[in-house]
Amino acid sequence: MLTLFYAPGTCALASHIVLEEVEASYKSVRVDFSNKDQEKPEYLEINPKGRVPALVTDQGIVTETPAILVFICQNANRPELSLLDDPFGFAQVQSFNSYLCSTLHVAHAHRMRGHRWVDADDTHAIEAMRSKVPETVGACFDLIERDMLKGPWVMGDAYTICDSYLFTVARWLEGDGVDPKRIPKVMDHRQRVSERAAVKRALADEQ
Amino acid sequence: MLTLFYAPGTCALASHIVLEEVEASYKSVRVDFSNKDQEKPEYLEINPKGRVPALVTDQGIVTETPAILVFICQNANRPELSLLDDPFGFAQVQSFNSYLCSTLHVAHAHRMRGHRWVDADDTHAIEAMRSKVPETVGACFDLIERDMLKGPWVMGDAYTICDSYLFTVARWLEGDGVDPKRIPKVMDHRQRVSERAAVKRALADEQ
Repeated sequence: MLTLFYAPGTCALASHIVLEEVEASYKSVRVDFSNKDQEKPEYLEINPKGRVPALVTDQGIVTETPAILVFICQNANRPELSLLDDPFGFAQVQSFNSYLCSTLHVAHAHRMRGHRWVDADDTHAIEAMRSKVPETVGACFDLIERDMLKGPWVMGDAYTICDSYLFTVARWLEGDGVDPKRIPKVMDHRQRVSERAAVKRALADEQ
Repeated sequence: MLTLFYAPGTCALASHIVLEEVEASYKSVRVDFSNKDQEKPEYLEINPKGRVPALVTDQGIVTETPAILVFICQNANRPELSLLDDPFGFAQVQSFNSYLCSTLHVAHAHRMRGHRWVDADDTHAIEAMRSKVPETVGACFDLIERDMLKGPWVMGDAYTICDSYLFTVARWLEGDGVDPKRIPKVMDHRQRVSERAAVKRALADEQ
C-alpha cells in the first residue's frame, strides 16, 4: 500500500497520474497549504522539507518527483513507463525530468515563492523575480517545444513518466504569463495527455 | 567511448568522479567559461542549455547530473553504485540527487547567477539574492547533516553516486558563506571522499 501526500495545483499531480497509470493500490492524502499544514510537525515527520509530494511506502518515505515517478514504475514492474531497461532511453527520461525539477519548476517558483531566495519583506526583489517569470518560464517551454518534446509523447512513440510531469507543469504556463501560441506542440501535448483515463481519475481525486 | 564536457568548479565534477570510479573509457573536454564557450554555437549544438556537464555517448548526448550519474553506472554494468536493482534504495539515491540539483544547487546559484531570475542590471535584487545564500545553502546542508547523510557514506555502508555528488557541492560551501563547524558529518564525508583514488584522478584531470 502506498500513500501519496499531495496538494492541488502542485507538481504532486505528476506522481498522482502515474499511480493511476500503473493502477497502484494507494490512497491520497491532501495537505492543506491554506492552513500551512506542510509546515506542521506532523507533516515534517513525513517530509522534513515541508513540501509535496511525499510517497509513503512499506519500506519508508520517498520524496522528490523524479524519484517518486521512477519508483512507482519500478515498484509496479512497469519498467517501460520510464524506459528503465534501456540505459540511454532511461537517461533521456531522467534528463527531461531533471530539467523540469531543477530549471522549469525553479523558474516558476520565483513567481509565488521568491521568499525562498531573498528576504520576504524585500518587496523590490520579490517583485523583480515575479516580473521575470514570463521570460524565464517561457524560455524553458521554448526549449521543450524546440528540442525536447519529440511527439506525440515526450519520448516519441512511448508514453512515459515524462508525459505526466510535462502535463503537470504545463498547467501552470498561463498563470506564469507564457503565451500558449508560442508553444503549439506543448499545448497539443497537454490536450493529448488530458484525455487519458488515468489523468482524468487523478484530477478527479484532487478535486 | 564517452566524452564528458565539463568546467572546473562546477557540478560536472560529480560525473567526472563516477567515470573514474567505474574506470570508463572516456575523454574529458574542458569548456572555457571565462571565454563564454558554453554560449557559442558549437557548444550549444552539444547542449542547447549552455551548461555543463554534457556526456556524449555513441547513442547521443545526455545532460543533467542526476541522469548522467545513473547512466554511467548502468552503462558500465555497475548497478550497485546507484542501488539500481533495489527499487526503494534506488528511490533514495534519486531523491538525494534530485534534492541537490533542484534545491541545494539552485540556492547556491543565487550567489553568482542571480541574473537567471531577475534583470542583470537590477543590482538591488541581485545583491538581495547574493546576501541570502549563506542562509539558504546553510539550511540545505543542515538538512543533509541531520536527516540525509547516513554515514559513513550518504546511503550508509554502500558507496554510491550520491557521494560524488555531495562531495562536489560541498566544495562550494565555504564560498557560499556556510560555517563548516555547523555540519561536522558533511565535512567528515567530504574528507573521506577526497581520499578515494578515483576522486584524486578526476580532480587531477580537471587541473
